[in-house]
Amino acid sequence: MSTLVMKFGGTSVANLDRIKRAAKRVGLEVANGHNVIVIVSAMSGKTNELVGWVNETSPLFDAREYDAVVSSGENVTAGLMAMTLQEMDVPARSWQGWQVPVITTSSHANARIEDIPVENITAKFDEGMRVAVVAGFQGISSEGRITTLGRGGSDTTAVAFAAAFDAVRCDIYTDVDGVYTTDPRISSKARKLDRIAFEEMLELASLGAKVLQTRSVELAMRYKVKLRVLSSFEEPSDVAGTLVCDEEEIMESNVVSGVAYSRDEAKMTLLQVADRPGIAAAIFGPLSDAGVNVDMIVQNISEEGRTDMTFSCPTDQVLRASKAMEDAKTSGEINFADLVADTEVAKVSVVGIGMRSHAGVAAQMFKALRDENINIKVITTSEIKISVLIDRKYMELAVQALHDSFGLEKAG
Amino acid sequence: MSTLVMKFGGTSVANLDRIKRAAKRVGLEVANGHNVIVIVSAMSGKTNELVGWVNETSPLFDAREYDAVVSSGENVTAGLMAMTLQEMDVPARSWQGWQVPVITTSSHANARIEDIPVENITAKFDEGMRVAVVAGFQGISSEGRITTLGRGGSDTTAVAFAAAFDAVRCDIYTDVDGVYTTDPRISSKARKLDRIAFEEMLELASLGAKVLQTRSVELAMRYKVKLRVLSSFEEPSDVAGTLVCDEEEIMESNVVSGVAYSRDEAKMTLLQVADRPGIAAAIFGPLSDAGVNVDMIVQNISEEGRTDMTFSCPTDQVLRASKAMEDAKTSGEINFADLVADTEVAKVSVVGIGMRSHAGVAAQMFKALRDENINIKVITTSEIKISVLIDRKYMELAVQALHDSFGLEKAG
Repeated sequence: MSTLVMKFGGTSVANLDRIKRAAKRVGLEVANGHNVIVIVSAMSGKTNELVGWVNETSPLFDAREYDAVVSSGENVTAGLMAMTLQEMDVPARSWQGWQVPVITTSSHANARIEDIPVENITAKFDEGMRVAVVAGFQGISSEGRITTLGRGGSDTTAVAFAAAFDAVRCDIYTDVDGVYTTDPRISSKARKLDRIAFEEMLELASLGAKVLQTRSVELAMRYKVKLRVLSSFEEPSDVAGTLVCDEEEIMESNVVSGVAYSRDEAKMTLLQVADRPGIAAAIFGPLSDAGVNVDMIVQNISEEGRTDMTFSCPTDQVLRASKAMEDAKTSGEINFADLVADTEVAKVSVVGIGMRSHAGVAAQMFKALRDENINIKVITTSEIKISVLIDRKYMELAVQALHDSFGLEKAG
Repeated sequence: MSTLVMKFGGTSVANLDRIKRAAKRVGLEVANGHNVIVIVSAMSGKTNELVGWVNETSPLFDAREYDAVVSSGENVTAGLMAMTLQEMDVPARSWQGWQVPVITTSSHANARIEDIPVENITAKFDEGMRVAVVAGFQGISSEGRITTLGRGGSDTTAVAFAAAFDAVRCDIYTDVDGVYTTDPRISSKARKLDRIAFEEMLELASLGAKVLQTRSVELAMRYKVKLRVLSSFEEPSDVAGTLVCDEEEIMESNVVSGVAYSRDEAKMTLLQVADRPGIAAAIFGPLSDAGVNVDMIVQNISEEGRTDMTFSCPTDQVLRASKAMEDAKTSGEINFADLVADTEVAKVSVVGIGMRSHAGVAAQMFKALRDENINIKVITTSEIKISVLIDRKYMELAVQALHDSFGLEKAG
C-alpha cells in the first residue's frame, strides 16, 4: 500500500475543532487507499509558552533540558489526533520521537535527523493500522536524551519520514494556501504558484519566506520527496497548494519566480582595514566563532594597503558582531580605523531557475529600482538569485516594483 | 552518600516562582549532604486541562493515548526544575519515566510500578550529579508505551523511588502542612499530628482524606519507607509536617487518631432478596463486573427465606449499580422485590491503632452521635476503624461531635 505523509502546523491543530478538521482530511486520504503518517506540531502558542518559561528560568539554559521541556507540546497533539482518528473508526496510534525512534545528532535544540528505522511503524501498518501519528520536531540522541530540531523542525520531520518510508508525497498543511510570487501583504498582485523548483524554494525559504523550514527543503531535494504546501482551511482538492518539485517537472515558468525580502538585516562596515593575505579569514573566523550569521560580503578595491570590508547579518547580532571585531582588534588579529553599523537596511531578492538561461535579469532589477530612486548598498548574486541591500523604508516599494517589472502577476 | 526523595505536588510547582522556592528546599538538602531524587507533578491545573481535552475528543478514549497525552505536564515541570537547580549551581538533570525506566504494568491510566532499575541514575550520582529530577505519575509498559499511575500517582512514584534507592526518607511537599485529626475546614479544633502509623494513614487516605494516594501508603508500609507530609509554603524545619511511620515509632497516642469523612456516598438496599447459599456472590459479582466500588455491606437477618441486603457505593456509581442489579434480576441470577437508593448519605469514621487495645470506642462513638440525635444507618468496623453511614446533612455536626468526644484537640 502507498504511504502518504501529511504534516499539520500549529495553526492547523490550534484547538480540538481544528484537530478534528485535520483528522477528516487524513480520513479522506485513508479512504483513497493510502497508509498515512501524520506529523503534528504543538497547538499554536504552546511552544512559545514553553520557550518563554525556559528563558525566564534559565537564560543560559542547558539545551538538553530545553529540549525535554519544549518537545512536550507535540506529544499532546499527537495523542489527541490519534484519539480523534479512532473516534472516526480510523485505526491509528501516536508515536513520540523516542518511540519510533527518530535518531538524531546530540546538537540539542538544533539537532539533525540521522536515521528513522521504519520497522516499528511498518509492523503496525502490516497489522492493519492505517495512520501513524508522529510528534514532530523531536528525536532522541545516542545518549537516550530528547532532542529538538530547531523552530519549524516539524517540516523536516515530515520530509525525513517521507524519505524513509518512500512516500508518494509529503503534504505540508499550514495557514497559507501555497507559495506566492511575493508576500501578499506587501503586493496585492502576488500570485500563488502551482509549482516551484526545490532550488527556488530553498532560496525563498532562506530569504525569509517563512512557509517551510530551509532544512526540510534541502532534505526533500536530496531525497526527491514531492513536497506540497497547502492550506488546512480550504476545501480538499487535488490541485490545491503549491508543489515543490524537481526542475524537470516544471513545464514552463517565468524567468523570475518570486520576490523575497528580509526585514531584519544590518549592514556593518570595517573602515580602512589593513589589507593582507588572510585578512578575510581573520575577520570572518571570529565572527563565526561568536555565532554571527554573516550573509552578504563585499570588499572594496584595496588602496594603499587598506580596504573597506562590508558584511550583513541579522539586526539582533550587531552587538555580538561588534564585540567580536573589537576583541579581534584588541588582540592584534586585525586592524581597522572604524566600525560602522547601519541597522536600517533590508534585503530584497529576486529568485528564479530561469535566470540560468536568461541574461539581463540583474540589469532589469537594477533599472526597476533606479526608476523608483532606490539606492543599492550591497549586491550579491547566486546562480538563481540576486539580492540587494537597500534602505529599509524602501523595502515595500522595491518588492512591488520588482514584482511588476518581472510580470509576476501573470503565470509564465 | 545518603539518598533523600522529595516530591512536590501541583500547587508546589504551579509557576516559575514556586518551582524556584521548591528548588531552594532541594538545595538545602543537597547542602545537608544528601543526593536527592525530586519527583514532580504537573503545574496545578495542567493535568486537568489535558484530561478535559481527552474527554472532549473521545469520551471512550484509548487509554494508551490518554496516557501519552496526560503524562506531558510532568515532563515540563521536570525540565524546568532541573534548569532551576542548575541556575543555583546544583548539578541536576531531568528524567522522564521511560528514561529511568519506571517499568509498569500495561493497565493504562491505572498502571502499577513493577520495577525501578537504579543503575542509570546511580551512575549519574557517581559522576557528581546531586539531584535527579523525575517526572512523576508516569512509566513505561513492556510494550514500550507510556503509562500513568492514576490521579495522585506521583505520591506512589515518590515512595517507589524511595524504596528502590533505599532512601533515608520520602518527603511529600504539598499545600497542607501535614495530616490533621480531621478536616480543619469542618472543625476548627482540628490538630496537626506529628506522627501517624501507616495503618491509620491507609484508613484515612481511603476514607477520603486526600493528602496521599492510598497506593503510596501501602507501598511505604510494605517497604518501610519513612514518609513525611509537609507544606512547601512554610519555612524549612526538621520537625515540620507529619511523619507516617511504623506503629512502633509512635511513643504515645490517643486511642483515636482522627475523624475522617466521605461526602459522596450512596446507600442502596435490595428489598426481600430470595435468600440462599451463594446469594452474596450472585449480587456482588455483577456489581464488581460493572466496576462498582462497593464499600459497606449489611445483611439483615433472614426471615422466611427472604432478606434485605444493603450496600454503599460512590454516588456517581448508583446508576451503574442499579442497572447491574436489574440485569441480574432479568437474567434470573437473583430475585428481589425492590431496589431503594438513598443518595443523601455520608460516611463518617474514627480511626486509631489504639482501638486494638482499648474497648469501648464504638460505644463512645454511638453515644456521641446519639447525643446529637444523629441516626446511624449502616455500621462497619475494622481492627482500627469504625465507620457509620448517616444523613449527609448531619455530616459536619457528626465530625465535630466525634472530634470533641475523643478529645482530639489535645495530643495523647
